[in-house]
Amino acid sequence: MELWFTEKQTPVFGITAKIKETLVTEKTDFQDLSIIDTEEFGRMLVLDGMVMTTVKDEFVYHEMVAHPALFTHPNPKHVLVVGGGDGGVIREVLKHPEVEKAVLVDIDGKVIEYSKKFLPEIAGELNNPRVEVQVNDGYMHIVESKNKYDVIMVDSTEPVGPAVQLFERGFYQGIYEALKEDGIFIAQTDNPWFKADLIQKVNQDVKEIFPIVRVYGANIPTYPSGLWTFTLGSKTYDPLQVDETKIPEIDTKYYTPRLHKAAFVLPKFVEDLVK
Amino acid sequence: MELWFTEKQTPVFGITAKIKETLVTEKTDFQDLSIIDTEEFGRMLVLDGMVMTTVKDEFVYHEMVAHPALFTHPNPKHVLVVGGGDGGVIREVLKHPEVEKAVLVDIDGKVIEYSKKFLPEIAGELNNPRVEVQVNDGYMHIVESKNKYDVIMVDSTEPVGPAVQLFERGFYQGIYEALKEDGIFIAQTDNPWFKADLIQKVNQDVKEIFPIVRVYGANIPTYPSGLWTFTLGSKTYDPLQVDETKIPEIDTKYYTPRLHKAAFVLPKFVEDLVK
Repeated sequence: MELWFTEKQTPVFGITAKIKETLVTEKTDFQDLSIIDTEEFGRMLVLDGMVMTTVKDEFVYHEMVAHPALFTHPNPKHVLVVGGGDGGVIREVLKHPEVEKAVLVDIDGKVIEYSKKFLPEIAGELNNPRVEVQVNDGYMHIVESKNKYDVIMVDSTEPVGPAVQLFERGFYQGIYEALKEDGIFIAQTDNPWFKADLIQKVNQDVKEIFPIVRVYGANIPTYPSGLWTFTLGSKTYDPLQVDETKIPEIDTKYYTPRLHKAAFVLPKFVEDLVK
Repeated sequence: MELWFTEKQTPVFGITAKIKETLVTEKTDFQDLSIIDTEEFGRMLVLDGMVMTTVKDEFVYHEMVAHPALFTHPNPKHVLVVGGGDGGVIREVLKHPEVEKAVLVDIDGKVIEYSKKFLPEIAGELNNPRVEVQVNDGYMHIVESKNKYDVIMVDSTEPVGPAVQLFERGFYQGIYEALKEDGIFIAQTDNPWFKADLIQKVNQDVKEIFPIVRVYGANIPTYPSGLWTFTLGSKTYDPLQVDETKIPEIDTKYYTPRLHKAAFVLPKFVEDLVK
C-alpha cells in the first residue's frame, strides 16, 4: 500500500509526497499537528494541513529569516523569535556570537516538544543556555515588551488559526515599540503567486510604522509556489546599505554575503506589489 | 466528479492541479502531448507527463531564457531557438528590435500546431515575418550551421525522449561552432534540488568549450522545486560585465534590468555545484 500526503496549497492546486511513516498526528490546544516521514524531503512538520518545515529544505527558510536582519544590525544582542517552535530560526540566530540572548515565544508547547523529539537536527539548539523558551502568546509578549529587543523575527504560520493576529497592523505597531531605538523586525509574508494581497497589505501597514521597509525572497520547494517572501522593517539600518565585503562567511547552505543584497532584487510582478 | 492532473516530479514527490477540461491528448511521433485547462494555472502544455508551460506562469521561463542573453550581446541580429515550439521564447526575442531574424527549430510539429490553436497568448508571434519556423531535428540543424548565429537558445524538454542529445557535450561543441565569433548560448538546465548532477555535468562540459560560463536562476511555480536554472556560455561578452543602467525597461513581468545581475547570485548549495 502506498501512502501519500497532499497539501492543497490553494483549493485547486497542491503538492503530494510519498510517506514512509507517520510519527505524530495530534490535535493540540491550538492546531492539528503531524510529523510525517516522507521519501523526498525526509521528516516534515505539518500544522493544520500545511507544511511548516522539512529536514531536506528547512535550511532555506531558517537561514533567510535569521541572517539578513542579523547581518544588517551592527550589534544584535537581544533577539526575539515569535513562533518558530521547531527551533530552526534559533539555531541560525546562535551562529551570531554577538547575540547574548535569544527568546523564543511559541503559543503551542507541543510544537516544541515534538520538534525536540522527532526533528533534533532542527530543534537541537533549543536547550542552548543562550536561549530562553517561553510557551506563551507571542502577541501578548510583544504588547508587554517595550524598548527591549534589537531584532524581532516573526516565524509564524499562515494567517489562519493562532497566527491571524500576527498579520495585523496593531501587531506591527507593538513590535515597533518592543524594539530598541535602532531595532529591526522581520516577518515571513507568504508567496506572491497565490497571496499577492497579503504581501501588499503587510507592506502598506509596515510602511506606515517603520521608516525603512524592504522585501526579499527565497526559494523553498515545499512552500506554495516555491518563492517565499520576507518583509523587513527597520528604524535605522538599511540592509541595502550594508557593506557585503565585511559580512563574514558563516556555515550556511543558502545565505551568502553575495546574496545579502541580491535577495532583495525581486521579479517585476513582485516589485510592483511593494512599490 | 473532480479531475486532477498529477505530475510526479520525482518518483516520490509531485504537484497536483484541478482540471476544468482536457483539450488535447495525443501521442505524436515523438512524445505524449496534452493540453489541459487547470483552475489555478490556466491552460497547460504537458509533454510526456511533464508540465512544459502554463498560461499563468509561462512569462518567467520565457523571459528568463530570452532577455539575459539578448541584453548581454550588444547586437544580436540572428537568433536560433532549439525546441520551444510553444512560441513563448520567440515572443520575448521579438521584443528586441535589433533581432532581424529568429529561427525556431522544433522536432515536433504538433507542439507548434496545438500551441497556435490552444495557447495563442504564448504562440501568437510564431507567424511574425521576422520568424522562420522549421519542423526539424535541432541537433542536425546545429551540426549543419557554422558561424551563423549571434545567440542560440536551447528551450528543450528534460533529458528524456527526444531531448536526450541536447544535454551532451557534443551538442555544446556544435553550438560553439554554429555561433559567430562573439556568440552566446543559453540552455535551461533543470533544478538543483532533484537534478544537481545534471547541472554539475552540463557546467563542466560547457566550461571545457566556452571561456565564459555563468549560471542563473528563476522561480517557476509549476517546475520541480520552483527554482529553475539556466546555463549561459559565451565567447566574448560576460553578462556580469553589462552596465545595468543602460538596459532599457521593456514590457516584462519577471525580468528587470535590476535583476540582470542579481539572477546570477545563487544560493550557496547551487553555487557549490558550479564552482
